[in-house]
Amino acid sequence: MAEEEPTAPEGADVLETDAPEEELRFRDEDGAITREFYDAITAAVEARDAEQVRALAGDLHEADAADILVALHADDRAPFVSLLGKDFDFAALTEVDEQIRVAVLEELPTEVVVEGMRELDSDDAVYILEDLDEAAKAEILEQLPIPDRLSIQRSLDYPEETAGRRMQTDFIAVASFWTVGQTIDFLRNQSELPDDFYEIFVIDPAFRLAGTVPLNKILRAKRQTRIADVMNETSHPVLATEDQEEVARLFERYNLVSTAVVDEGGRLVGVLTIDDMVDVMKQEAEEDLRALAGVGDEEISDSVTDTVRSRFIWLLVNLATAILASMVISLFDGAISKMVALAVLMPIVASMGGNAGSQTMTVAVRALATREIDRRNMVRTIVRETTVGAINGVLFAVLIGIAAGLWFEDVLLGVIIGAALIINLVVAGLAGILIPLALDRLEIDPAVASSVFVTTVTDVVGFSAFLGLATWFLTG
Amino acid sequence: MAEEEPTAPEGADVLETDAPEEELRFRDEDGAITREFYDAITAAVEARDAEQVRALAGDLHEADAADILVALHADDRAPFVSLLGKDFDFAALTEVDEQIRVAVLEELPTEVVVEGMRELDSDDAVYILEDLDEAAKAEILEQLPIPDRLSIQRSLDYPEETAGRRMQTDFIAVASFWTVGQTIDFLRNQSELPDDFYEIFVIDPAFRLAGTVPLNKILRAKRQTRIADVMNETSHPVLATEDQEEVARLFERYNLVSTAVVDEGGRLVGVLTIDDMVDVMKQEAEEDLRALAGVGDEEISDSVTDTVRSRFIWLLVNLATAILASMVISLFDGAISKMVALAVLMPIVASMGGNAGSQTMTVAVRALATREIDRRNMVRTIVRETTVGAINGVLFAVLIGIAAGLWFEDVLLGVIIGAALIINLVVAGLAGILIPLALDRLEIDPAVASSVFVTTVTDVVGFSAFLGLATWFLTG
Repeated sequence: MAEEEPTAPEGADVLETDAPEEELRFRDEDGAITREFYDAITAAVEARDAEQVRALAGDLHEADAADILVALHADDRAPFVSLLGKDFDFAALTEVDEQIRVAVLEELPTEVVVEGMRELDSDDAVYILEDLDEAAKAEILEQLPIPDRLSIQRSLDYPEETAGRRMQTDFIAVASFWTVGQTIDFLRNQSELPDDFYEIFVIDPAFRLAGTVPLNKILRAKRQTRIADVMNETSHPVLATEDQEEVARLFERYNLVSTAVVDEGGRLVGVLTIDDMVDVMKQEAEEDLRALAGVGDEEISDSVTDTVRSRFIWLLVNLATAILASMVISLFDGAISKMVALAVLMPIVASMGGNAGSQTMTVAVRALATREIDRRNMVRTIVRETTVGAINGVLFAVLIGIAAGLWFEDVLLGVIIGAALIINLVVAGLAGILIPLALDRLEIDPAVASSVFVTTVTDVVGFSAFLGLATWFLTG
Repeated sequence: MAEEEPTAPEGADVLETDAPEEELRFRDEDGAITREFYDAITAAVEARDAEQVRALAGDLHEADAADILVALHADDRAPFVSLLGKDFDFAALTEVDEQIRVAVLEELPTEVVVEGMRELDSDDAVYILEDLDEAAKAEILEQLPIPDRLSIQRSLDYPEETAGRRMQTDFIAVASFWTVGQTIDFLRNQSELPDDFYEIFVIDPAFRLAGTVPLNKILRAKRQTRIADVMNETSHPVLATEDQEEVARLFERYNLVSTAVVDEGGRLVGVLTIDDMVDVMKQEAEEDLRALAGVGDEEISDSVTDTVRSRFIWLLVNLATAILASMVISLFDGAISKMVALAVLMPIVASMGGNAGSQTMTVAVRALATREIDRRNMVRTIVRETTVGAINGVLFAVLIGIAAGLWFEDVLLGVIIGAALIINLVVAGLAGILIPLALDRLEIDPAVASSVFVTTVTDVVGFSAFLGLATWFLTG
């Protein structure tokens, strides 16, 4: 055994990159690109020093090249790609925001784009092409070799956000009567193989999927073993027209790394891999979070105009519900003018209800998205949420009742705010669960629309319960 | 070519499972377990009919067995596992909520648990063991064969939520001077291999990681090729003590399917695979969503007591901020008693500010979590958010100013609410970005604490701007 090294070696760091060993550090401890590297690459690009750009960034992983692209000034991005030339892996463009991707592609000469696209797996090529306008798309497709063009066109013919649009059309398929030895020899002699693959597919003479074999099974088997004896018959193929979120859920459920894509005839047309599905999974949870807060799919890099526009709608909806709440309050203006304490206390009732409703709603929206709520537990869930609302209602009624009673030296006022709070928290629990369920039933995304309805309900009920009870018992 | 089939074959459905072909459908179109299957399995379990239970569920994928476990009544779960006997894959227990897992394990005899654990990969065994109490853990570990026990113990010695705790300790490692042929022969003769693997590792004589080889590279290479010639030297190994979220980010950035785990000496100690990291990635986005809404890591299956407790704290914090807002209002009770319209309109200003603040905050919290905000774009982001707030402020000031002016037939009142709205939306934009940034700097999770501070700011500013301006200009 060699001597133990007491400290961590360079190679063991999570932040290590493919950059060559040199004085210039590429990423800092937080994983961000260092100031020094940024300055060096910017200087090289602006001096149009191709050699220096290649020395700095030529050996980087596509993901690192993508991060540089994002960090660079907008004017330096296309020149960076041009200067890197053959050392720029166009796959990096799949890792940046749409806005940056389209801008860079529009600025580059078509020949450069075509040359770069030829090196790509078909799924990456489709991902890059799909956001371009029809004219640019056609121009690029025209210059690609026919096999590439056909496989890209095939994916583009499937609707957005389907398995067919996301799949890769390069894959390995063999017949079930082949042996492991034949299969290995076949792989050794193929020159055009996908960059990475984790399983090979078994097909019948009509190209219909018969099974799959993970690569490790092939490596463990003797050469003379038949493929039929090592293949998994029950794999989890997906239809090319299947929604990508359904597919992502399947990957997650069965811990898949890749899966076959088949057409309506059961014929193998492509393969989906986990890296594409990871993006879909993340996007889904992210979308719900943004929808609940009333922000669209905006990016931190979006322009002020885009952001103002996307948020305006939500604020407008919120304005309508706020005005509705005001109208409720104005019904009780007589009581308020007699007793200003009501105006002071009323936001407490509405705000507690709004928060309690949001809590229930968030849990319900996510449980619906992940299919954790179904027929079997729906009634139980509704009862549970209402009970939670009632219990918290009683607890906070006591707290706020005592506080308000002492503050305004008025026991009855304390009792009334307590009663209003119980009513509003029970209603909040009910609204928080029933509104998402109803929207889901109506096939409206509960994440997008629930918030508005829930806060409207808790505002209206909160103000009218408190002011109504007060009018009745205190100022009547 | 065979004739085309006009309709989709059974096998091409995304919802297909490993269940044998039979009349009883296991999942419906939505992917939920069918009523019929549920009734059949419940009847079989309650009749203690082992043969029938095995016929129904013996061939299912671990993920499907897990879904049955969740669907079954709590009393039927441990019997279901016992009746399945050797046909129950303990890996299914890694797919259910902690509460269900611990309950089932506590009810089963230790021998059954030990027997089931022996079949597991080490990472699954650790996942199952880690939630048990110390006594139960020790009892099970004692009865496991020494090699299994040592590898499990090794992982358990690393802190929770680190790479070391999540890694699998079974992996394939070879020397760089081996040939591809030697490697394949070695794999063919090994009896104890991990269930699935996607790459093999290359080590030096001191067990230090030298590189990795994806399986497909081995399959493409000639037998006499040296491993050194096909291996990737620059892989992305992680330290065993690294936080799992950092590791998940690395997987996402470099589209990894598996990666080596090394100790402080650079020695290979385990492997992490994408399926474990997918759970971590989803969990992270989910945690932020829940934190922003003030719900902890509660599950839809939690008890009423647990839920009440977890939500109480958040509502209590909210109560404190609501009372603070009330105190601000009470400063202006003179103005309100002179002009009740102020009480009617004031919630609009506060609510618009609260919503605008939440929008900015949500984008900021996620951008911080995914490292999209850094030193370089921080100032630009702050300016941007404030500008967006100001523009929306002016737009809504006009809208609400006109509406309020007409409603109460008072132009000055319209001007005042408009001015208050502009102030509050600018402050909301600032608070929405600065508060998450400040919390992040203080190493407090911005997702957990931002909401409270932002709404406190927008409530206090909203009420005092509107009521203050009104006092000054209208009722002074």
